[in-house]
Amino acid sequence: MVSKSTLKYIKSLQLKKNRKAEGLFIVEGAKNVLELLQSDFKITTILATSLFLEKQNQLFRQKNIQLLEASEQELASIGTFKTNNAVIAVAAMRTSSPIAVESNFTIALDSVNDPGNLGTILRIADWYGISNILCSPDCADHYNPKVIAASMGAFTRVNIQYTPLEAILSSCKVPVYGAFLEGDNVHQVKFSPYGILLMGSESHGVSASLAAHVTQKVHIPRFGQAESLNVAVATAIICDNFRRTIS
Amino acid sequence: MVSKSTLKYIKSLQLKKNRKAEGLFIVEGAKNVLELLQSDFKITTILATSLFLEKQNQLFRQKNIQLLEASEQELASIGTFKTNNAVIAVAAMRTSSPIAVESNFTIALDSVNDPGNLGTILRIADWYGISNILCSPDCADHYNPKVIAASMGAFTRVNIQYTPLEAILSSCKVPVYGAFLEGDNVHQVKFSPYGILLMGSESHGVSASLAAHVTQKVHIPRFGQAESLNVAVATAIICDNFRRTIS
Repeated sequence: MVSKSTLKYIKSLQLKKNRKAEGLFIVEGAKNVLELLQSDFKITTILATSLFLEKQNQLFRQKNIQLLEASEQELASIGTFKTNNAVIAVAAMRTSSPIAVESNFTIALDSVNDPGNLGTILRIADWYGISNILCSPDCADHYNPKVIAASMGAFTRVNIQYTPLEAILSSCKVPVYGAFLEGDNVHQVKFSPYGILLMGSESHGVSASLAAHVTQKVHIPRFGQAESLNVAVATAIICDNFRRTIS
Repeated sequence: MVSKSTLKYIKSLQLKKNRKAEGLFIVEGAKNVLELLQSDFKITTILATSLFLEKQNQLFRQKNIQLLEASEQELASIGTFKTNNAVIAVAAMRTSSPIAVESNFTIALDSVNDPGNLGTILRIADWYGISNILCSPDCADHYNPKVIAASMGAFTRVNIQYTPLEAILSSCKVPVYGAFLEGDNVHQVKFSPYGILLMGSESHGVSASLAAHVTQKVHIPRFGQAESLNVAVATAIICDNFRRTIS
């Protein structure tokens, strides 16, 4: 039995201002929580069904975690999932590491404010072995529960730094790639192993001040009539083409 | 001023059983409705803000459409968007054309029941000039408002046929491609211009009975640690590799 105040407290972490005040965030669902347990994030509380607690018993042994048994209804009532038959964890945020753009291939996101897209991009970066993402300050918060959910565990491995992008793009010595309709065919671009891939929001694209720092415009060839691709989909296709030339 | 019964009636079309009974579906947001107006779908009603009605005035002239002015609050209350400052249209469903798999490159979806993923796949198909999608009967309904929204207009151009896939896959003469961890590297596969790309649901993959009909297993090379990719993302990457060899 979980107290109402505990449920209310955990639910409050759905909001950024509360996450910031407490330094805590929530992780929902078995897959994401199991990844969390294998990461170096510090978990404070796990609220789970008796079945989950029993099944994952071994994983909790070594850690100083408050374990609380909850019903599926309670889990659904405090989380963002419509149904949750397993678990919600509360964990402490960690500090991002500053990103050395000169010695990495980095994805930079300009105003990508849809949490589902940001989470999917984390998962794509993790698939393609891209460990660092730069986010403009107006991107979705990477501790938003919808980002965490869509990342399918990638949030534990990908380092995200929120920072104004202009300063970095204007001073870096590596190529800056950006997706533009008038760019070179991405199937023919020879990528550099070190570089920045700048992606803009779906509604506004890359902002003009940042576009000025793009050194290599690329485009994804289109064969039909759709006007554009979803930003996460476009990121994935460019990463796949990057990895085809650099692996 | 829109009557309450009209609002209630349009809202009822969020549910599949009501759409089926009425033969009607809803389309939300300016981008999708403008695409709808340019398509051969028969529109019965447009509910829009005065601003949208005024701005798009020219587009309504030639059509026999019931035009109703509504507030943003009314639009949001009957649709699935959190906010909608423009328009909701009601249109008549149309019959899908049977797909000639022998003379097309077709995407076949096995139990893809997330509407956002199905809509995104429509958009991807439309981008890559793939005009036909086969869906197993348990896929999300393509007239679900979330499918329509995610498709960003592609629903007007891509033909979808719901049918048990087994009969088609077992009798077709073209290659059947499917994504499997043990498949050939998609970067090295030489695709055929006519074929079927079979994609499974994210949670269960392609069902075993259908997997038996895959003639060419492909895999998307992974360079990091994510366990999998979102089904729409994986579809896009395979389509991009298909178009690289066949265009």
